[in-house]
Amino acid sequence: MLKRTSIKRPGTSAAKVISRLWLICLSLTLWACTEKVPNAVADPLPSWNEGAAKQTILTFVEAVTDSAATSYVPPQERIATFDNDGTLWAEKPLYFQFYFTMQRVRDLAPEHPDWKTRQPFKAVLENDGDYLSLITLPEIFQLIDATHTGITVTEFEKQVRAFLGSARHPRFQRLFTECVYQPMLELIEYLQANDFKVFICSGGGMDFIRQFSEEAYGIPRENVIGTAFITEFRMVDGHPELLRTGEFVKPLNDKEGKPVSIQRYIGRRPILAFGNSDGDIQMLQFAESSERPYLSLLLHHNDPEREFSYTGGTEKALEMAKEAGWTVVYVKEDFKVVFPFEVGKQEQ
Amino acid sequence: MLKRTSIKRPGTSAAKVISRLWLICLSLTLWACTEKVPNAVADPLPSWNEGAAKQTILTFVEAVTDSAATSYVPPQERIATFDNDGTLWAEKPLYFQFYFTMQRVRDLAPEHPDWKTRQPFKAVLENDGDYLSLITLPEIFQLIDATHTGITVTEFEKQVRAFLGSARHPRFQRLFTECVYQPMLELIEYLQANDFKVFICSGGGMDFIRQFSEEAYGIPRENVIGTAFITEFRMVDGHPELLRTGEFVKPLNDKEGKPVSIQRYIGRRPILAFGNSDGDIQMLQFAESSERPYLSLLLHHNDPEREFSYTGGTEKALEMAKEAGWTVVYVKEDFKVVFPFEVGKQEQ
Repeated sequence: MLKRTSIKRPGTSAAKVISRLWLICLSLTLWACTEKVPNAVADPLPSWNEGAAKQTILTFVEAVTDSAATSYVPPQERIATFDNDGTLWAEKPLYFQFYFTMQRVRDLAPEHPDWKTRQPFKAVLENDGDYLSLITLPEIFQLIDATHTGITVTEFEKQVRAFLGSARHPRFQRLFTECVYQPMLELIEYLQANDFKVFICSGGGMDFIRQFSEEAYGIPRENVIGTAFITEFRMVDGHPELLRTGEFVKPLNDKEGKPVSIQRYIGRRPILAFGNSDGDIQMLQFAESSERPYLSLLLHHNDPEREFSYTGGTEKALEMAKEAGWTVVYVKEDFKVVFPFEVGKQEQ
Repeated sequence: MLKRTSIKRPGTSAAKVISRLWLICLSLTLWACTEKVPNAVADPLPSWNEGAAKQTILTFVEAVTDSAATSYVPPQERIATFDNDGTLWAEKPLYFQFYFTMQRVRDLAPEHPDWKTRQPFKAVLENDGDYLSLITLPEIFQLIDATHTGITVTEFEKQVRAFLGSARHPRFQRLFTECVYQPMLELIEYLQANDFKVFICSGGGMDFIRQFSEEAYGIPRENVIGTAFITEFRMVDGHPELLRTGEFVKPLNDKEGKPVSIQRYIGRRPILAFGNSDGDIQMLQFAESSERPYLSLLLHHNDPEREFSYTGGTEKALEMAKEAGWTVVYVKEDFKVVFPFEVGKQEQ
């Protein structure tokens, strides 16, 4: 179909001929390079130890992407949802967003002299570990309300970015965005490379997570689902602004709220769901289907040396995993490397 | 860096050599093909007449994608939001979703003998045009509640698909999904090809639009924002189900609700917003920014011959367009072709 004359177009200069010759050489070398070399395929999950969990993931992804197999799932249906706290980044000693909340309380304290004598603000300002270790959920909501609402979305985003750019994890002395799990970064990238749409579905604040999801995980803002406040649209001096009210979007994005939000934000069930706690049970159930393949995964923290070890808040999920056949991933046994800042250390 | 020996690997058979020669020929032809041919770039918007609207769009897209220009906008921020009814598909004589609602009333009537004598159901069952032309908003919500809620998401989706696969537009006698605007299909594709993320932001039902957005517009389900009902998660016989309750997600996705939802679902302001009615004013305002380029567009229906002509419900938006300098797109003057089923007719 292509006429040879097309490469004899008039006006071809000597320089062009030379550059064409270079292109031919380049084509030849590239072609030689791309020739299949058996067993030389790069491991997409190098920070995962070989074992049942890694193999289950690889087998699943191969199964749903093999267009000749009955297990094939078309790209638009390849939805993967990940919990955030304790699944994509650490959640101990406290949820990272709570450190932001405490920072904001300290920042705002000068405007609220009564906080010096009023709990739970007093405990935050005095760094009263005994009080904070027993803080109640209504008290946490009181702190969140005082620090996360009544401001514009733009202001809030700026505050989150300032915090994430400076505050450090108390144990690892790293930015919180560095305390993400290296094996999960690889898994996200592997899934995206296989045309999965990867979403975060977190009980944490949606606008909080969106300030770092792209840089830290390669997950775009619009793929972050979380607990959110209702905002109000206003024109301020001719400029559009959204004010964060104190009213939560219903439902909170935890437990039964996770499948509800997944349906609302995505419009499809995930075929892969990854969580770590009792709050993720319904999301993992939501992925289950008799009509197409699915993979429900539960991360278990059992590595006090490199990270943390705990079962609190995950007991029911671990029980359910046995019953439902969910794949349990163990930090100690399955993660060759835990955090990105450890990559390369082993080789030294 | 590459050694020539890499193409002299032992075990190279005659067949391999021949296939390599073929590859060389292919490389050469491909390279010859990709040489730049001036003025041969295809028009990305062939169904748009040449004019101010088309030129404004082309200039805007070139400006935000030119990485050497100060007007450059990185891909993750290239968010475009489109209203649906009257912007992507027609909305006359009635909103298309209202035909679905009436169909569902007729389907469900045998289970509700009282509807025969109860308004507004009676008017739907008797096809009482006089009554329906004056139907009130509370009555519409009554019909929606009776037909859109109290069922599972799965059932609802099935009903929508059945309707869209069979019901026809009263004037054009085409499936409703064929009554989409050809120029808008081209614009969506053009934006996506330029790494825009294209979203629908509609006052209509989110789950309704999601049943055809991929096939009709090439817009994935998760990029559809609309008015939605709160659902409830339940395990039914060991299977996860979501039940559509009668409670709306706050706010309804119209007027001030549109920017609120855009922030909630996307987490970023659009740099291009396209609407057609007073319900889109706030979305178009939300795109405005002094910090980066933006384009706010308003479609005006002034073509009774090929489509419809009306100003009802768009008066304020047309007024605002003048004040704010929004680009008004006129169906009559700017659309060379209106519907996909007309494509090619002109040439016959």
